[in-house]
Amino acid sequence: MSDNISPLAPTQSIELPDIKGVTCRVARAQYKDWDRCDLTFVELIEGTTVAGVLTQSKCPSTEVEWCREALSDGKARGLVVNAGNANAFTGARGMEAVERILDLASQHLDCSKKEIFVSSTGVIGVPLPKDKSETGLKAAFNAEPCSWKEAAATIMTTDTFPKMATTSAIVGGKKVTLNAIVKGSGMIAPDMATMLGYIFTDAAVDAVFLQKMLIDATAKSFNCITVDSDTSTSDTVLVFATGQTEAPALTSYNDAGADAFAAALQDICMQLAHLVVRDGEGATKFIEIQVVGAESDDSAKRIGLSIANSPLVKTAIAGEDANWGRVVMAIGKAGEPADRDKLAISFGGVTVARDGLVVPDYDEKPVANHLQGAEIDISIDMGIGKGRATVWTCDLTHGYISINADYRS
Amino acid sequence: MSDNISPLAPTQSIELPDIKGVTCRVARAQYKDWDRCDLTFVELIEGTTVAGVLTQSKCPSTEVEWCREALSDGKARGLVVNAGNANAFTGARGMEAVERILDLASQHLDCSKKEIFVSSTGVIGVPLPKDKSETGLKAAFNAEPCSWKEAAATIMTTDTFPKMATTSAIVGGKKVTLNAIVKGSGMIAPDMATMLGYIFTDAAVDAVFLQKMLIDATAKSFNCITVDSDTSTSDTVLVFATGQTEAPALTSYNDAGADAFAAALQDICMQLAHLVVRDGEGATKFIEIQVVGAESDDSAKRIGLSIANSPLVKTAIAGEDANWGRVVMAIGKAGEPADRDKLAISFGGVTVARDGLVVPDYDEKPVANHLQGAEIDISIDMGIGKGRATVWTCDLTHGYISINADYRS
Repeated sequence: MSDNISPLAPTQSIELPDIKGVTCRVARAQYKDWDRCDLTFVELIEGTTVAGVLTQSKCPSTEVEWCREALSDGKARGLVVNAGNANAFTGARGMEAVERILDLASQHLDCSKKEIFVSSTGVIGVPLPKDKSETGLKAAFNAEPCSWKEAAATIMTTDTFPKMATTSAIVGGKKVTLNAIVKGSGMIAPDMATMLGYIFTDAAVDAVFLQKMLIDATAKSFNCITVDSDTSTSDTVLVFATGQTEAPALTSYNDAGADAFAAALQDICMQLAHLVVRDGEGATKFIEIQVVGAESDDSAKRIGLSIANSPLVKTAIAGEDANWGRVVMAIGKAGEPADRDKLAISFGGVTVARDGLVVPDYDEKPVANHLQGAEIDISIDMGIGKGRATVWTCDLTHGYISINADYRS
Repeated sequence: MSDNISPLAPTQSIELPDIKGVTCRVARAQYKDWDRCDLTFVELIEGTTVAGVLTQSKCPSTEVEWCREALSDGKARGLVVNAGNANAFTGARGMEAVERILDLASQHLDCSKKEIFVSSTGVIGVPLPKDKSETGLKAAFNAEPCSWKEAAATIMTTDTFPKMATTSAIVGGKKVTLNAIVKGSGMIAPDMATMLGYIFTDAAVDAVFLQKMLIDATAKSFNCITVDSDTSTSDTVLVFATGQTEAPALTSYNDAGADAFAAALQDICMQLAHLVVRDGEGATKFIEIQVVGAESDDSAKRIGLSIANSPLVKTAIAGEDANWGRVVMAIGKAGEPADRDKLAISFGGVTVARDGLVVPDYDEKPVANHLQGAEIDISIDMGIGKGRATVWTCDLTHGYISINADYRS
């Protein structure tokens, strides 16, 4: 948690409505020597369904392995999030700490251990201290319910602001609400379910269908962002549906309102994904990269991510330089079908390169003005097909180096 | 060219011997407004064979496309290198400039255009000015022969020191010599023939066999280094063999001395590759990453490069932090077969993590001392197979950001 809030943080704070069947509580486990809450306990009403996407890292944390196992039943009663210690690569001792949390929470809620989900975030390689977890969790059991904002703040690590989103959909004539909290600002990369994100809805959704919708929503949101190309060992996104409205239960895309709900889920995932980029370590610019005219959508996405992960493109944007040559370089290295002489590149809507060379008399002024802003648009037309994708990233600055070279494990 | 020489530059300067059949000359084309030579012209004796490896970028420069075409004949009489302008993504005008150089040089040497090789390095997207090339090239024709060091200095762009190497081999009882010059310090990434590198030998080598040996040597040298994961549009490594000794001609690995020559070629490629990393933009640490126990050699290389390209690993090393958790993360994201609980990680020969967790009482002092040095060794034992690879990179520092965010296209 930093004293300096990201310059890209939303300027308007939002209020999240209540979600019936969801109660958040926070407490101090003191995982680090800090003056803040760092353990979040969310109680979910009986009948809550759950879906999740988890890191594709080959070295995942114990918590990720547990969530993957627990998801197979599709039912949830509780969520525990520890901030300040990732408990990854901690072997049997790390597993013991998770087991203790599962025991305590399942006893408290009188449910199966497989209905308890656990995440931890922070330093890798230090076993989560069991005694601190136990003290913190018991304190949370007895704490007053807290606001969404307090829960969002309690799951933070290097984040500079609490990240929340809300949206709604009409299902069978009834309004359902989705709230979400998320943390993450470094070790953020694509091809995974990223960071820690939790979405809560009062809709009633079959767990298998919820999983399907979440995978679809993730593909175009979390998996289209990158801060630094590094994929965490602990990335987790879970969605919980309490079924506490009069809206009919959703079991497939054929149900009335399923499309509306899926769109709302996609929307809230996108909001979370953008919030993570806006809190990218050291970020000063929010960059949207649109690729059209590629051979396929997948190809467009890989080209977009090649640009979004290029240190030379990201430092150029930090320097407010419309260095389209580096964009050409990043397209060229993506390994995807490309025809240099059909390529067009725009910054802020102004085409600067086309047909294999610079546009001879393009107006540099609006481009320079655009680059000085905090919201940067880069558009690529590959000119060879109909594939399209949009990805998001931030610039690479001295701030990123300071945060990550000064950090001690 | 920077005023600040990389702290990783070799402290001892080397003298390169003459190579019979090779004459270097330099001149001022004034591609930029600078007080230095920026055009290199190398004359090669009739009968010289050539092999080359070129960028795998899908958006290569005109020069790269020309070299690829010219290599098909395997014969060389001249090499022209322009520094300060990459002439990439410059369409027909860029091609015209290359054509003019080919015309002038082939007339001067009374040879085929396909025996002239051209490279350009510098800013992308600005057509190489034909008039400057012509003036520079004609001046070079009339210049006195120069030293290897002057040639190495003339091909530099953001490099902080001229990079050269020499080695020799015994072929059929006769000594043959290999000299080489190279430039590059940013936009350096694997899976390609990297940067601009030129190797000259007085050995006699069949062009097809030379190509085969160069590809083998590149796989374990240039393709095992990375500075910033960004692949250039102009990467080129050429090797020229003048055949000006009494040593018998080499046509296959079955020839006496072929293994010795191949080893020397591998050695000189490795020297060049390491020099490039030692001049990595902003580098303060030279990092060797050894991976053993992987499923295959290819898998080991991909794991090594995933570590070498991780901004979080590179910033940790910059901060002199033995953050093996980030190494675990980078192994996990590589997508290669891995078993978290069989993994071992060492820094400077001290095993810090093993069997899925930290070594409980490892001695932190020698590790901390090692990290404070300029030469960092990281060893990974995947514990699942016999695959091995070694890759090299540098740390990621404020210097890299300063160089690349301040640079204007």
